[in-house]
Amino acid sequence: MSNERHEDPYLIISSDCHAGLPTEEYRPYLDPRFHRDFDDFLAGREARREAMTRLGVRNEAFADKWFHDNEEGLRGGWDPAQRIKELDGDGVAAEVVFPDADAVDSRTAAPFGVGLGLSGDQDPELGMAGAKAHNRWLAEFVSANPARHCGVALLPVTADVREVVAEIHRAKESGLGALMIPSMWVDKAPYHDRRYDPVWAAAAETGMPVVTHSGAAPREEYGDHLGIYVSEVTWWPARPLWFLLWSGAFERHPGLRFGVAESGCWWLPNLLWFMDRLYLGAHGGKKLSPFAELKRPPSEYLDRQVFVCATNTKRRELAQRYEIGVDNILWGSDFPHPEGTWPDTRAWLRRTFHDIPVGETRRMLGLAAAEVFGFDVRALDPIARRIGPTPADLGQPADQAAVEASWARSREVGRHWLTDHEFPVLGVNP
Amino acid sequence: MSNERHEDPYLIISSDCHAGLPTEEYRPYLDPRFHRDFDDFLAGREARREAMTRLGVRNEAFADKWFHDNEEGLRGGWDPAQRIKELDGDGVAAEVVFPDADAVDSRTAAPFGVGLGLSGDQDPELGMAGAKAHNRWLAEFVSANPARHCGVALLPVTADVREVVAEIHRAKESGLGALMIPSMWVDKAPYHDRRYDPVWAAAAETGMPVVTHSGAAPREEYGDHLGIYVSEVTWWPARPLWFLLWSGAFERHPGLRFGVAESGCWWLPNLLWFMDRLYLGAHGGKKLSPFAELKRPPSEYLDRQVFVCATNTKRRELAQRYEIGVDNILWGSDFPHPEGTWPDTRAWLRRTFHDIPVGETRRMLGLAAAEVFGFDVRALDPIARRIGPTPADLGQPADQAAVEASWARSREVGRHWLTDHEFPVLGVNP
Repeated sequence: MSNERHEDPYLIISSDCHAGLPTEEYRPYLDPRFHRDFDDFLAGREARREAMTRLGVRNEAFADKWFHDNEEGLRGGWDPAQRIKELDGDGVAAEVVFPDADAVDSRTAAPFGVGLGLSGDQDPELGMAGAKAHNRWLAEFVSANPARHCGVALLPVTADVREVVAEIHRAKESGLGALMIPSMWVDKAPYHDRRYDPVWAAAAETGMPVVTHSGAAPREEYGDHLGIYVSEVTWWPARPLWFLLWSGAFERHPGLRFGVAESGCWWLPNLLWFMDRLYLGAHGGKKLSPFAELKRPPSEYLDRQVFVCATNTKRRELAQRYEIGVDNILWGSDFPHPEGTWPDTRAWLRRTFHDIPVGETRRMLGLAAAEVFGFDVRALDPIARRIGPTPADLGQPADQAAVEASWARSREVGRHWLTDHEFPVLGVNP
Repeated sequence: MSNERHEDPYLIISSDCHAGLPTEEYRPYLDPRFHRDFDDFLAGREARREAMTRLGVRNEAFADKWFHDNEEGLRGGWDPAQRIKELDGDGVAAEVVFPDADAVDSRTAAPFGVGLGLSGDQDPELGMAGAKAHNRWLAEFVSANPARHCGVALLPVTADVREVVAEIHRAKESGLGALMIPSMWVDKAPYHDRRYDPVWAAAAETGMPVVTHSGAAPREEYGDHLGIYVSEVTWWPARPLWFLLWSGAFERHPGLRFGVAESGCWWLPNLLWFMDRLYLGAHGGKKLSPFAELKRPPSEYLDRQVFVCATNTKRRELAQRYEIGVDNILWGSDFPHPEGTWPDTRAWLRRTFHDIPVGETRRMLGLAAAEVFGFDVRALDPIARRIGPTPADLGQPADQAAVEASWARSREVGRHWLTDHEFPVLGVNP
């Protein structure tokens, strides 16, 4: 990678983007045995849209304006050429492609709701059929520009384990690069269960990171109170992290990589602090039995095997990056969702990263994601040089000494519970 | 309150203590109709203990030593005279009394498991019977020293609403001062449901704060992985907070006070930041419908009606107190649980509060709890003067100017999203 001089443009990889066909167009990718079920699914769309509107997830006035203002760009949700144009416009050289291009009206929902709503209690047969349909289309879609897209295969992991493992290998061979599992197992076995060991082994063997993505939540508990949903929707995709960790899955499968997408990363410092202290014998845990399935503190597994696709990172989160781990934070644009940074990514990056050291910015904006998802940075280099914003574009000063110094105390303290400090130091030194 | 000179001893109120009878002794407090069910419950004790040991919540070696070393003091779990001796020893003038004195062996579990394990899916009839038994005993227990104890009535809130409301009034008249509801409604109506409005109204009318306390969790999902349980056991009691908030319960019932006990308070800054931004129109929520049930930002409801019984506060949490709100943090000793500070509370306080301003320490150690739970500080003053540690005992310097100054920047930034700052400032200024 030749991105070494200060003024070089950034190689930006969005670790959280979305693509999906207008739902009815999935038909040719779906096993014909399920076409009748697909008709039933299509017939239920209006009812689902009404339910979303009632909960307030869908705002009619916003939706009208959004589709009117962005008609052309939104076609990039499924049209490869349009997509490249949008990525270029945002300065994004490559991307990780999750399902559900349309997060406003669900017009591009994968069959049987296996997209971001993928859930453990799905009918296993329909779930696998819908996932395969999306995965087949996605493999075609990414093949137009394989260096720039890492397609995320949908994996209904609570289905029959042999089928799940077979789909991992099929997805890998078809050109996909990661696996999305449901955030919630619901009535199926939780992810500490050894029944999933062949799945984690296959993910490790194929080098495909396993990811949860926010979306599913126990909505039946929320009534029509949207704030409840939004307040905890990021907790459910994070939850598998401590199920995998404490059950020793990261110890048994050192090649397994696990990530949490579009759920922010503000929650990670507290979680690490809490889990490390528990493992290292905090007072509050003395009455409990030891944790035999781990061989090292939770934060070591985190740094080795866990990442967060933190999407549109907030300043508050960046201030905590020495606790989270700079290399564990993978920025994303969330294209083409309205809660993301598209089509104003360049301005967002400037507002967010102007006082962050350039070296760390390079990691969070692209290089860390390249390692996790296996992007070929050499192949991406000419694209980044053509479209990528430079540090100057982000308002980052050429003289980085003062910038580095302003964060020195925060970096030095880092994870304070491991560096013999009593609390973190946040904020730029005066 | 005459606690105004720097050197005055602290009035310490523990907002999280526990008391309960050795289980079999609850029989006389239980409606005789349920004595046969009580025999069945007692017969199941050994099986429950084995289950706890398997999950690792109970550590045989620790338990033996704990009971051996603290035999006399632990009788304070149900013996009023012994209890006063232990409180005095710790410098604690008054306390809020939750159930389950024994958190190691569950020898003092309330009938039918309605103590800290109180859960929404409990048999409503047995649950109410067990709660009433504990509440009757507890009213007797606190009556020995009414100024020093605020007894927390157990309230199986998912039972018949009329019975629940009646029990609130009965508990109040019997001398109890707060209400513990289950953290989890499980298969019953979530707490946003309007069916609970008469309950919240009765709590407000009687001036009894409603509290959840950590303990219950979906253990059936954890297998024998204790770390999973511990990693999320504090989330479940916090969860009702955003169900009540977003459904407008605090708006409809301005006299309702709600608290979360023994779940720390490290999670509160992120939650407030997240919820306030959502309400105030953060970019990520623009596609969503407005939040009609609130009339002000979530943090305003928090400051007006919510508190945390943060128990054994950690230095990391105290560093975040200007985001949490100093007056929202209620310290607790957790007597007589081993994860608490008893019998070394004075040393714990010194380690934890030595560089915290005295005025703020007074609020967190007692005065805020006095307001929330309605303690009579005038009645407690002579006790505090006799047993309370002084600021000097806590290592706090007589000249507070330098201490105040060292936190000035952190205090000034406070909740940064409301003070036009980009992230919090944590840590003592150099």
